[in-house]
Amino acid sequence: MTMQNTTTLQTPVAPARGRLRPLGQREVRITGGFWGDRQRVNGAATLEHIQSRLESEGWLGNFDRAAAGTLPEGRRGREFSDSEVYKFLEALSWEIGRTDDPALEDRLRSVVARVAAAQEADGYLNTMFGRPGQRDRWSDLEWGHELYCLGHLFQAAVARARTRPDAEDGLLAIAVRAADVVCAEFGAQGRDGICGHAEVEVGLAELSRVTGDPRYLEQARLFVERHGHGTLRDIEWGRSYFQDDVPVREAVALRGHAVRANYLAAGAADVAVDTGDEDLLAALHGQWDRTVARRTYVTGGQGSHHQDEAFGEDWELPADRAYSETCAGVGSIMFSWRLLLASGDPRQAELIERTLYNVVATSPAPDGRAFFYANTLHQRVPGSPADPEATSPRASSSLRAPWFEVSCCPPNVARTLASLDAYVATADDDGVQLHQYAPAAVRTMLADGRTVAFDVETDYPASGSIRVIVREDAATAAPWTLTLRVPEWATGAHLSVTSADGSVDERDAAPGTVEVRRAFRAGDVVELVLPMTSRLTAPDARIDAVRGCVVVERGPEVFALESVDAGADVSGLALAPGSAPFERDGRLWVEVIDRGGEDAGWPYQASADESAERPASRAVPLVAYHEWAQRGPSTMRVWIPAAS
Amino acid sequence: MTMQNTTTLQTPVAPARGRLRPLGQREVRITGGFWGDRQRVNGAATLEHIQSRLESEGWLGNFDRAAAGTLPEGRRGREFSDSEVYKFLEALSWEIGRTDDPALEDRLRSVVARVAAAQEADGYLNTMFGRPGQRDRWSDLEWGHELYCLGHLFQAAVARARTRPDAEDGLLAIAVRAADVVCAEFGAQGRDGICGHAEVEVGLAELSRVTGDPRYLEQARLFVERHGHGTLRDIEWGRSYFQDDVPVREAVALRGHAVRANYLAAGAADVAVDTGDEDLLAALHGQWDRTVARRTYVTGGQGSHHQDEAFGEDWELPADRAYSETCAGVGSIMFSWRLLLASGDPRQAELIERTLYNVVATSPAPDGRAFFYANTLHQRVPGSPADPEATSPRASSSLRAPWFEVSCCPPNVARTLASLDAYVATADDDGVQLHQYAPAAVRTMLADGRTVAFDVETDYPASGSIRVIVREDAATAAPWTLTLRVPEWATGAHLSVTSADGSVDERDAAPGTVEVRRAFRAGDVVELVLPMTSRLTAPDARIDAVRGCVVVERGPEVFALESVDAGADVSGLALAPGSAPFERDGRLWVEVIDRGGEDAGWPYQASADESAERPASRAVPLVAYHEWAQRGPSTMRVWIPAAS
Repeated sequence: MTMQNTTTLQTPVAPARGRLRPLGQREVRITGGFWGDRQRVNGAATLEHIQSRLESEGWLGNFDRAAAGTLPEGRRGREFSDSEVYKFLEALSWEIGRTDDPALEDRLRSVVARVAAAQEADGYLNTMFGRPGQRDRWSDLEWGHELYCLGHLFQAAVARARTRPDAEDGLLAIAVRAADVVCAEFGAQGRDGICGHAEVEVGLAELSRVTGDPRYLEQARLFVERHGHGTLRDIEWGRSYFQDDVPVREAVALRGHAVRANYLAAGAADVAVDTGDEDLLAALHGQWDRTVARRTYVTGGQGSHHQDEAFGEDWELPADRAYSETCAGVGSIMFSWRLLLASGDPRQAELIERTLYNVVATSPAPDGRAFFYANTLHQRVPGSPADPEATSPRASSSLRAPWFEVSCCPPNVARTLASLDAYVATADDDGVQLHQYAPAAVRTMLADGRTVAFDVETDYPASGSIRVIVREDAATAAPWTLTLRVPEWATGAHLSVTSADGSVDERDAAPGTVEVRRAFRAGDVVELVLPMTSRLTAPDARIDAVRGCVVVERGPEVFALESVDAGADVSGLALAPGSAPFERDGRLWVEVIDRGGEDAGWPYQASADESAERPASRAVPLVAYHEWAQRGPSTMRVWIPAAS
Repeated sequence: MTMQNTTTLQTPVAPARGRLRPLGQREVRITGGFWGDRQRVNGAATLEHIQSRLESEGWLGNFDRAAAGTLPEGRRGREFSDSEVYKFLEALSWEIGRTDDPALEDRLRSVVARVAAAQEADGYLNTMFGRPGQRDRWSDLEWGHELYCLGHLFQAAVARARTRPDAEDGLLAIAVRAADVVCAEFGAQGRDGICGHAEVEVGLAELSRVTGDPRYLEQARLFVERHGHGTLRDIEWGRSYFQDDVPVREAVALRGHAVRANYLAAGAADVAVDTGDEDLLAALHGQWDRTVARRTYVTGGQGSHHQDEAFGEDWELPADRAYSETCAGVGSIMFSWRLLLASGDPRQAELIERTLYNVVATSPAPDGRAFFYANTLHQRVPGSPADPEATSPRASSSLRAPWFEVSCCPPNVARTLASLDAYVATADDDGVQLHQYAPAAVRTMLADGRTVAFDVETDYPASGSIRVIVREDAATAAPWTLTLRVPEWATGAHLSVTSADGSVDERDAAPGTVEVRRAFRAGDVVELVLPMTSRLTAPDARIDAVRGCVVVERGPEVFALESVDAGADVSGLALAPGSAPFERDGRLWVEVIDRGGEDAGWPYQASADESAERPASRAVPLVAYHEWAQRGPSTMRVWIPAAS
């Protein structure tokens, strides 16, 4: 695979092989709807907000100080603050690819110039290490985050190279010089070390794909294989925190720090695919299965522990202490997407959808200038209104905050939204697969030269109609296959194909995927109708934290009970026996009863006879989880106790 | 109150006033049984084990280095390591008071001499601060623990002064000189500061009681009142961590770090009682009520968060991530005991009992040489056998560990067990109150000179018979009142009074207290019979984490299901519908069904019809919670799901 090849793909992930080929920004364009709105806010507000914070926090200024030779004096931010600048550059690159905004182009070039000026003569780049008065380079692999930061630099350079291959702004060259330093230090003949925070692996793998230089893939492979051999020092929470406890190919589930775990798994998937390592790929599929079956919240969120931002054990999924870091959601999408490309399994697309709607969409405020870092599923105490100027600890409030001391999440959301077009559809030799449903324009060429072009019209998830309108005849009238994903919850989905000539072909569509293969003509319409009725969902009996509870879902969206609507704290509410959610005035409602009341003094008493008189029920509207905490301080719960 | 007065009481707490007067070691002696066994192991093994670790970890050596003037070179341990030496001295003092062991006396004097040699010329004492190359004294009130360490020094000196007032070993003088430094620095004209870890308050209050010097009580009062005014820097978890968020008299519940919260509440109770501050005392009673009703585990354990070792919000009581630090249990006993002395409320004695049996008794291994730091209520993954030589992180294993990097718990258990005789009974003007049931000899003099002397015979909690055998006639045949506590769970308790002449008086005894007032004669026997049948206990509907579960209790003991007995992991087990615990072969058993099985892929599915065929049930024995993890690595759960 050459540089020419992968820079033609405007997508964050471009594997050397696999079941599906991703379609990038030049081939898929989201044109509106739920995600189009969020992309617009991201481009119009969030990117400016992030740059303003990177300046005011001094994290961009650190590069200027490096260039001026005045460091370490005045350096601000944590060890990993450089990485936020790189994620911002990645987000800008995708946004420029998406919109061609010249103001953003100027902004990017200006930041790249400041980064370039900070690079050391030998290619090393980090504002925290290596200068007189700073710690030595690579002297703190556990916590220093040097390789982690470079991994984000590489992803930014890859995004730029794929969206503006002829830009000559120098970002790719900066990345290549830094990558060469990494290979010299940590190559097969070099130091047997890994970074305490995985990320350099995905960065190196994509850099290899963009540049065609196999050394970077080999370096990624070395880092992946070195995990699990205890080269990092042990810590209170164990080496599982860094995934340095068990080799990647021997692990049975993701574990430890949830962002690290997903980033590493994503990098390992890149290595497995590009090196043809089927054993490693199979191990990663097994880890994904187990993690989804036993260690994932109903929102798609991952990470049960505040203490170490980590996965819990199997079935350990507390709602009230859910950490479910926004970045772990982003990492889960990175990992799932790579497996999807490799295998074509629609379950991975479904987890991505669930995570997008209930984690990624939940984090930013409607104005794009405040964010959730952690995403609890049960808020017990109303938070204080966030100070729009304040920098917050990472997970202390029930309200979105403008910035964090560890501010990984805002730029992670920004780069994900800006590149989201590239997660909508894929192609194989015979056609195109739609994985996510949004208003979109799709146009690509299959391997044999057939052009595929269609628009998607939908207001999903508000309703379940997804219409694919073919815009060009299949070249030489050759048939191709349109594959549509039918979510697991969409029992009773229905497909109709209306030909340009007016004939209609209808059939049921079972969960999984549904295919339409024909010599498509311009004007042909394929409509998939997903049933968008609300549903009550119960947890596996082994998930202790939400036993006896149900969650209301509709389509890919999880709903919540919020005190703003309930008129009281939600801690004593339960679903009225036998009741089901219903729609009224455009909202979902449930009947609840109140089981609060006076304290018992000691809250553990003889098992009570439940035949006592039941309090009257009342109807309370629900809120989509991604819309909670937008009306001021509140308490909230996703899982609603089911009164027995 | 003069020094003479309080040194006659061999008890850790000797308030100036209150509803009840504590009976100390000279008045109450535990003579065997459940607690007598543990006291014996504590004296024979634990104290030696602790000293050996204090030596090998270098924490005692720090004092030698201080004396030699070689610090900071070679100093070992955390900021608070001095306090473990002081808690060890306190434990030794009580054990000497209890047993008069000359070997322990030598050991204590040797350690006191090393501490004395480390004290600075002006009375300041801490091995971590104030020397050239160390941070300045009092320069880190948030984390430095200087006042915290001195609080433990004061408690040790008080224990020694009360058990050996004529010892002349110098420990009390060391404490007085250090307390004078504290008063000079932090007095009304001094620095407006508090310690990030409460403890100095209880220490100063008792030191005031022992010495009769009112300055120390006033200093304790100042520290109590200064809490809640934000003099400490804010931290990620908020100032509630240090109880510096809300003034003590305005708080509604204990919050923040659970050990700090209880120690502060205990010190505040001392101040409220001795200064006659009824408002403060009422606030503390309210906090106790709310904390017990909403923030306490069924074991009596407190603290829901690993991250900050803190109380959670109301109803936030996860079983699997229960922190329930052993020291928080000790702190809860300290706080409850002070309120009990002030008010006479048997609910405080009941919480103490629950905490003793299910937290304090759970921590040490049967050999007294390994400990739980945290006390989970649900172990999901078997731990690795503890290395008997290794020092562990504080809460990482499912198995007891010999020592911890933060090793507050072992000496805290040791001092509690060594002083336990002083928590058994109290006196008022009219008689004696028995709060805890253990084989014991009680002999005291009431205020008007009447002698009360009796033995307690019981094998409680193995059975529920508590026999009080009067050993001396009431002087001048004057009547006195024996008050016995009847636990809340003891519905159907029965009391009989058999006079020395053979006549019998019988009656039922409702939960609360039962009184027998008569002119007791030697040979009179009062027998309280508590019903020791097992019971199923359910949680308040607002405790989300254990909804749909029950716990098996018998008497004051909580029971657990352990994989060693269940023959499999306990994660999929549920109580068979309609079944009740039963006794067989001297153990408690339950019928369980297995609800585990194949993973569903995605663990959230449409609410299932529960009419599916139910798996066969089988009988599994339970283990007393305090005896779990004594047979190797296991999984365990206290709360058992009740299959609906």
